[in-house]
Amino acid sequence: MSVDNPLDDLIRRLARLPGLGTRSARRAVLHLMINRDSLMLPLAEDISRVAQSVRHCVECGNFDTADTCRICRNTDRDQSRICVVEDVADLWAMERAGVFSGRYHVLGGVMSAIDGVGPEELRIDYLVSKSGEDAVQEVILATSATVDGQTTAHYIAERLEPTKVQVTRLAHGVPVGGELDYLDDGTLAQAMRARRQIND
Amino acid sequence: MSVDNPLDDLIRRLARLPGLGTRSARRAVLHLMINRDSLMLPLAEDISRVAQSVRHCVECGNFDTADTCRICRNTDRDQSRICVVEDVADLWAMERAGVFSGRYHVLGGVMSAIDGVGPEELRIDYLVSKSGEDAVQEVILATSATVDGQTTAHYIAERLEPTKVQVTRLAHGVPVGGELDYLDDGTLAQAMRARRQIND
Repeated sequence: MSVDNPLDDLIRRLARLPGLGTRSARRAVLHLMINRDSLMLPLAEDISRVAQSVRHCVECGNFDTADTCRICRNTDRDQSRICVVEDVADLWAMERAGVFSGRYHVLGGVMSAIDGVGPEELRIDYLVSKSGEDAVQEVILATSATVDGQTTAHYIAERLEPTKVQVTRLAHGVPVGGELDYLDDGTLAQAMRARRQIND
Repeated sequence: MSVDNPLDDLIRRLARLPGLGTRSARRAVLHLMINRDSLMLPLAEDISRVAQSVRHCVECGNFDTADTCRICRNTDRDQSRICVVEDVADLWAMERAGVFSGRYHVLGGVMSAIDGVGPEELRIDYLVSKSGEDAVQEVILATSATVDGQTTAHYIAERLEPTKVQVTRLAHGVPVGGELDYLDDGTLAQAMRARRQIND
């Protein structure tokens, strides 16, 4: 390469972002160089600002500039329901869809013996104690439909049993817009078993 | 969205990079947040450092931390050949391929009446005067095979005529690994016209 070190460093660093490889990192850096004042300098500032000001919400684990995030601070939200998600990306997906108006608990991962992730890392004790509050009526386990995600959900459901709170999980079935032909057997079986009245 | 403003700002800014949309920018930001110390803070520093220290080489237009870039400073390179490319990305591509050991002239674009890009913006006067030096024997026009790229090449070739320097262009033909079936007629016609002895 004919370029000097800072450029190479930047390309190598950018290439570590998900969705970017060396080639697209190179293109991105050239784009940044051409838009130095309008994009490159503000981007560096934005990254620093977020790195310094944004942290995990002490209540739910979401990201926010305050210790307690916007969702947890919002008393208009339904305080009787807690939705348990694996990570902040899932919380954002739920919020974008606008299908849930309660509170969240972000696990920050799933239980995994291999990776040494146990109940402590996922703050499950805290979830159990919060779920035991009188106000809470339902805990929705919205972990992924993967083996680890389902194992984690089962474990949490067991731990929640003494609290007498209602524990639910997201429905499995045919994705909207999905074609049966491309669907795996497991999903098809679940969709068949959970079939509903047509006007429901 | 439930997130606070700095995060949104950062996502919006990152989404302006080529190859990233809002969705991948969001994923990238979450990845950065998880790797705050190992990736996020160093990335902000890298971007600032490059923005402040890297500029165009006064000779050829390449990017470098010095006024005259590494390639122009390297006296071991062939001083008799100048390769004219549209932008720094093209220069990097040539260097990666390792097929040229001379000097470069980066136009920084192509002539375009619509965008108001004329010979001045592309520093063509400078190229012509440099090409008139005794040491220079050949100018290779490696602009893109687009209409604007070829128009620019034609214009430069005309301007170089009085200097008596040899003016060449890259060959057109079938890309290595390319299938004839997917090739456009123009390329096929050029490849046929420029066919060569099999052992050449």
